[in-house]
Amino acid sequence: MQDQNLVTVALDGTGGDNVDARSVASAVRFALVLNPSLRVLVFGSQKLKQALSQEKIDAKRYEFFSAPECIPQDEDPRKVLEGYYNSAMRKAIEAVRDKKADVVVSSGGTGPLVALSRHILGTIDNMRPALCARIPAGPEKYSLMLDLGANAQSKSKDLLSFALLGNAAYKVMYKEEHPRVCVLNVGSERNKGNPLVKEGRDLIEQVKRINCCGFVEADKLFTDEADVIVTDGFTGNVALKAAEGVASAFLNAPGIKKFFSKLARPDWLVPWQYNGSLLLGVDGLVVKSHASAGKEAVAVALAGTVKLARLNLIDSIKEELKKSV
Amino acid sequence: MQDQNLVTVALDGTGGDNVDARSVASAVRFALVLNPSLRVLVFGSQKLKQALSQEKIDAKRYEFFSAPECIPQDEDPRKVLEGYYNSAMRKAIEAVRDKKADVVVSSGGTGPLVALSRHILGTIDNMRPALCARIPAGPEKYSLMLDLGANAQSKSKDLLSFALLGNAAYKVMYKEEHPRVCVLNVGSERNKGNPLVKEGRDLIEQVKRINCCGFVEADKLFTDEADVIVTDGFTGNVALKAAEGVASAFLNAPGIKKFFSKLARPDWLVPWQYNGSLLLGVDGLVVKSHASAGKEAVAVALAGTVKLARLNLIDSIKEELKKSV
Repeated sequence: MQDQNLVTVALDGTGGDNVDARSVASAVRFALVLNPSLRVLVFGSQKLKQALSQEKIDAKRYEFFSAPECIPQDEDPRKVLEGYYNSAMRKAIEAVRDKKADVVVSSGGTGPLVALSRHILGTIDNMRPALCARIPAGPEKYSLMLDLGANAQSKSKDLLSFALLGNAAYKVMYKEEHPRVCVLNVGSERNKGNPLVKEGRDLIEQVKRINCCGFVEADKLFTDEADVIVTDGFTGNVALKAAEGVASAFLNAPGIKKFFSKLARPDWLVPWQYNGSLLLGVDGLVVKSHASAGKEAVAVALAGTVKLARLNLIDSIKEELKKSV
Repeated sequence: MQDQNLVTVALDGTGGDNVDARSVASAVRFALVLNPSLRVLVFGSQKLKQALSQEKIDAKRYEFFSAPECIPQDEDPRKVLEGYYNSAMRKAIEAVRDKKADVVVSSGGTGPLVALSRHILGTIDNMRPALCARIPAGPEKYSLMLDLGANAQSKSKDLLSFALLGNAAYKVMYKEEHPRVCVLNVGSERNKGNPLVKEGRDLIEQVKRINCCGFVEADKLFTDEADVIVTDGFTGNVALKAAEGVASAFLNAPGIKKFFSKLARPDWLVPWQYNGSLLLGVDGLVVKSHASAGKEAVAVALAGTVKLARLNLIDSIKEELKKSV
């Protein structure tokens, strides 16, 4: 945190499917235009360094650090922890640990990002970290949904962790004292679902400070039925991807239909506006950008971190969690 | 099977959220118009009997049976099995068992329907039954997806059952010798996902007769990447509901947008055209209609059973399963 007024983002410039240096550089330039309070530390290859200089960005607003190693999206987390010391992802996370940046943004693989973030930044209260996205719930309304895939498998006590983290984050982000916390399920009645969600709900209901509103079904995800939607990482990931699949079936309709699609699309469902999931539960701000989201989406994720960093989210979450013990 | 040319459907006329007698009667009339080869045995209350007579349907094309008991959507399956002897759902399933109808259609609760169907009709080869839907995969292309919620929890060997059932059904329904069978997962790489899907895929791959094509992600559900999509009932239910949620966010846009939405909607994504999931694995044809789908959707489900009944699906599945042992 170099300057009280600026927010410094450490960008892993290597991650992402089919990411090329020019697209990353272009995203950085766009993000700096979008938000004048942004400063970016870019970690990546020499190629990226060149691409950045070609973009003619004000040299005071970014700094480049050579970190040529790229971690494959699906690399075994153990191998990630034991190696890749010169990887952009590792260096960028370390910049947050060392207080040189306020937040890290990466389009790298979820597995490596979660493993390295836990390892380098540590977890808050031994919570199990979860990927948390802001999802649209109507015009200028948002819900937080977690976990979206930080964990392949979850236990009911993990759902409780996710509820505590999501509740704390929502309170800070949306100034709402009693967010409605719901567990994603196949039905809304108490007897519906598998043991995981039933036990998870029971545990969450025992925390009096959480305004647990029971179960929510997946067709209500975008309808403002809940402020915080708690789910295991497998189900959450599948649910959001299924939603994305239908949205693109509409938006990529052929020919004239495509034109109508754009007119018909609810404004609040513009997918790239919602790029950037937060890894909650680690002791530092970590944002995962969608790998295939494109440079505009990466730029939006980068620019969006300014607001996030100014919320003092991590300290607020720590305070919240102290209360709930 | 009274007549070689007619198909007789036993309709549970009581099930469904907010179902009223007039809407059921109207669905029956609409279905009989849609398909001249259809005959319906209607099970339900006196109110339904009256509503049917008011619809002025040709008396030769339907028969009414009084079965006034209605099983609540969420009734405990054990209670369902031990009671409700005069329920429309039970009587309608018994009509299939007794060869008085070729297929049963119900909008009742999934739990009661699965429990009663297993109990009354029995299962094929002790398979675990699964709800299987035809989902749109492009213009005039369909995939079969199962399980969509017959089971709250599944083991990897259940995924194998679902694959065998789905494979057999797809072969019969779409005359395709080697359907592409995929397991729904959070990623397409072999190391992705939870133990359930990894072990499930391993088991399916061991069956040489199945053309197992690995994992498929939820954003590819409607893109013809797979012919048969295998998933546990919890995940499958959540995935389809999330997709429905987004589709209705588009289609229910306010005002002028709604108009554009209808123009822009891909023809093959008209939701009510796909009403009616098949309960595969029981020894008889059981179709579950969406509870909240409306009378047009119920009519489409009813009319659609004619084609299904003529496929001789159950015997074909039995033959297929014999081969795969």
